[in-house]
Amino acid sequence: MFISQLATFVRMPSISAQPKQQKNVEECAVWLADHLQKTGMENVQIIPTEKHPIVYADWLHAYNKPTLLIYGHYDVQPVDPLNEWKDDPFSGAIKNGYIYGRGSADDKGQLFIHVKALEYYLKNENRLPINIKCIFEGAEEIGSLGLDVFLQENAMALRSDVAVVSDTKIPTVTQPAITYSLRGMLGLELEVSGQKQDLHSGTFGGTIHNPLQVLCEMIAAMHDTNGRIAIPGFYNSVQQVGQSQRNYMKNVGQPDATIAKDAGATTLWGEKEYSAYERTTIRPSLSINGIKGGYQGDGPKAIIPSKASAKISFRLVPAQEPMMIEKLFREYIMSIKPEGINCNIRKVASAKPVIVNLDNPYIKAASSAYKDTFNNETIFLASGGTIPIVNLLQESLKIPTVLMGFALPTDNLHGPNEHFSLSNFYKGILTSSYFMKELSKIR
Amino acid sequence: MFISQLATFVRMPSISAQPKQQKNVEECAVWLADHLQKTGMENVQIIPTEKHPIVYADWLHAYNKPTLLIYGHYDVQPVDPLNEWKDDPFSGAIKNGYIYGRGSADDKGQLFIHVKALEYYLKNENRLPINIKCIFEGAEEIGSLGLDVFLQENAMALRSDVAVVSDTKIPTVTQPAITYSLRGMLGLELEVSGQKQDLHSGTFGGTIHNPLQVLCEMIAAMHDTNGRIAIPGFYNSVQQVGQSQRNYMKNVGQPDATIAKDAGATTLWGEKEYSAYERTTIRPSLSINGIKGGYQGDGPKAIIPSKASAKISFRLVPAQEPMMIEKLFREYIMSIKPEGINCNIRKVASAKPVIVNLDNPYIKAASSAYKDTFNNETIFLASGGTIPIVNLLQESLKIPTVLMGFALPTDNLHGPNEHFSLSNFYKGILTSSYFMKELSKIR
Repeated sequence: MFISQLATFVRMPSISAQPKQQKNVEECAVWLADHLQKTGMENVQIIPTEKHPIVYADWLHAYNKPTLLIYGHYDVQPVDPLNEWKDDPFSGAIKNGYIYGRGSADDKGQLFIHVKALEYYLKNENRLPINIKCIFEGAEEIGSLGLDVFLQENAMALRSDVAVVSDTKIPTVTQPAITYSLRGMLGLELEVSGQKQDLHSGTFGGTIHNPLQVLCEMIAAMHDTNGRIAIPGFYNSVQQVGQSQRNYMKNVGQPDATIAKDAGATTLWGEKEYSAYERTTIRPSLSINGIKGGYQGDGPKAIIPSKASAKISFRLVPAQEPMMIEKLFREYIMSIKPEGINCNIRKVASAKPVIVNLDNPYIKAASSAYKDTFNNETIFLASGGTIPIVNLLQESLKIPTVLMGFALPTDNLHGPNEHFSLSNFYKGILTSSYFMKELSKIR
Repeated sequence: MFISQLATFVRMPSISAQPKQQKNVEECAVWLADHLQKTGMENVQIIPTEKHPIVYADWLHAYNKPTLLIYGHYDVQPVDPLNEWKDDPFSGAIKNGYIYGRGSADDKGQLFIHVKALEYYLKNENRLPINIKCIFEGAEEIGSLGLDVFLQENAMALRSDVAVVSDTKIPTVTQPAITYSLRGMLGLELEVSGQKQDLHSGTFGGTIHNPLQVLCEMIAAMHDTNGRIAIPGFYNSVQQVGQSQRNYMKNVGQPDATIAKDAGATTLWGEKEYSAYERTTIRPSLSINGIKGGYQGDGPKAIIPSKASAKISFRLVPAQEPMMIEKLFREYIMSIKPEGINCNIRKVASAKPVIVNLDNPYIKAASSAYKDTFNNETIFLASGGTIPIVNLLQESLKIPTVLMGFALPTDNLHGPNEHFSLSNFYKGILTSSYFMKELSKIR
């Protein structure tokens, strides 16, 4: 029953990045709101933002008990490259104990864990052990556009003691983990243009600075030969992590070989003075996510294209401000831009890095709930990903967040054939239920 | 009448590079063969090759007169980027004395000039002044695949005194020009692959050598900062052009400012010790024609793609052998390829450079025909383009070629909004007729 409901949820193609999927994102919001209503949640609302709607619901009858804000996102990443999926990306197929589909792990499966825990209490006990406010957004994968305004405008109504976000990973099926740091993000599009139209590469080859070549030269100039980002000043505000934290990370983090195996890579790359786990968590990075330029069809086409563009994203660590990094990037591009070439840089997403405070009773409650389910002590991990709301909750609303993950490193988040363990789904529901019960004991 | 026939010809989307257009290429061959039949040409045949068919026709009743082989190609370049065309690329629209459409100048309009000259004689005089063999191929834009085999297998039947090819340019509407050199071509596809699937750029950013970034780094390493090709040994076999030819080129060639204007570029680029005209004719070049890699849809997608590819084409000058250049390219890529990255290189097109012998009576006949039409002396130009048959005719069949052009530098060959001057079309028909008459006087 829970599984077939999750499959229905996963089958909805709620890709937030693509305007042509706008209607599907909205339909997914409606379905989720309807589902919360049936679950017994109250005050269910679909709240428009500048981009995609936020689904809100609450249940506030646990007098004198803490209030937990549950956050999740119902939007998903695009599915390209489609030909690398074994099933339709929105099949919701169940195979060998996993559910397959874009968003099955990130974040529909993990979001749904909490919804099913709520349902468990509401159906069996007719009430919840604590007060609950749910925020399920539809724009996380595009940098949570509109979320900051929503949080500011509803700061009073959203007041809570603690927030829980399940949009992170645990290293293995037996090892629970709470994430204590997230990298920030800055997504940019760089367009390079030159002569006014595509030209015959026979007639003009050798005398026109090909904008596509220039784009490649610019991208090549973004890293030095040691895998460090070559933008002047880029590392200036990076906070060095202390040796004790690095020692802890060495104990709990995945070894390089495991990270390589999870990535399906034969070789790792990057700053040699850091482990792979460190490079992807306490060190910033810059990824080229896509390039569009010139002819991409079948066969040859003898042209010098007039323009080319790249999608570029940074992951940032404390205290790198996205706005400052954007400024450094713009200055660098302008400084290396050759004559006769124009560059246009557009910001598409931005979120600050965050370190979560672990010194509060909610973290203890979460660890206890994890232990009741997994029969194992919780470890604390740094994550390379970004969840914009965590910094916003901490900075603007002063709400501490518990990042309680259930995805596995092999679930292939953002890639083809994304999947989610049904065993972790059930364990998640149990953990969430225990967590609410533990929270009810606080104060 | 001639114009509406040409418009019909231009409206056929005979894009040779794209398998999905195969049927359209074949239909165009059928239309052209049918048209030749109606014109009064004999022995009309559609001859299959490994790729697209060759249309053949002849008329061989001019006893004791020379035989002229007329070559043209009825295939066209792809039309991308479609959104930069003001009209449908296959509209054949007539505006302000020009016919618009992909292939209008390259090469349907120029091919049709000779067909209409033949028709003029056959309709008005019931005979031709010389013997004619026509070869119209459908794969020139993809490196004339299959043409070499056709020429070898039919060497005896194709024996001719001279060939004429109208697939080149004249600098202005009043200045006739015969092309005496063509660059060779080598078209390659370079695919770079790394880890086995697309990865989350948050989770793995900083520790995976992004294949798309590696492709950019390789492309950046293909030129030095002076615009010279950085592949070791690349210039070893380049023949230096003598000072007297360079002086002549300086007199007749377009100045840098004109070439920049024709290109729609504010700045030129490349080897400083050569003029723009020289850089595009007597110097080799390397153009990046297109890149495909990662996410190209709307909005952001936070991935490290697993592979990326580039379409790359060289233009070669005597005595650079395409096979040798391919070998040097492969060696260079393997030498700069980082650990954990795989490269796959595929040849898609190849043609040798050629210098046409100008010391024969056919060149004089062509100059004379040009003068009768344009009332101006012919100049001799080097071209940056490639026409594979010219080298094949000269080397294998020992047939000299006259490269008699009618396109203008502003016709935007291979780019959007390609067009062809109707005035040049009519002048071309006159010139072709005079040329046949002049040839009939030889021997």
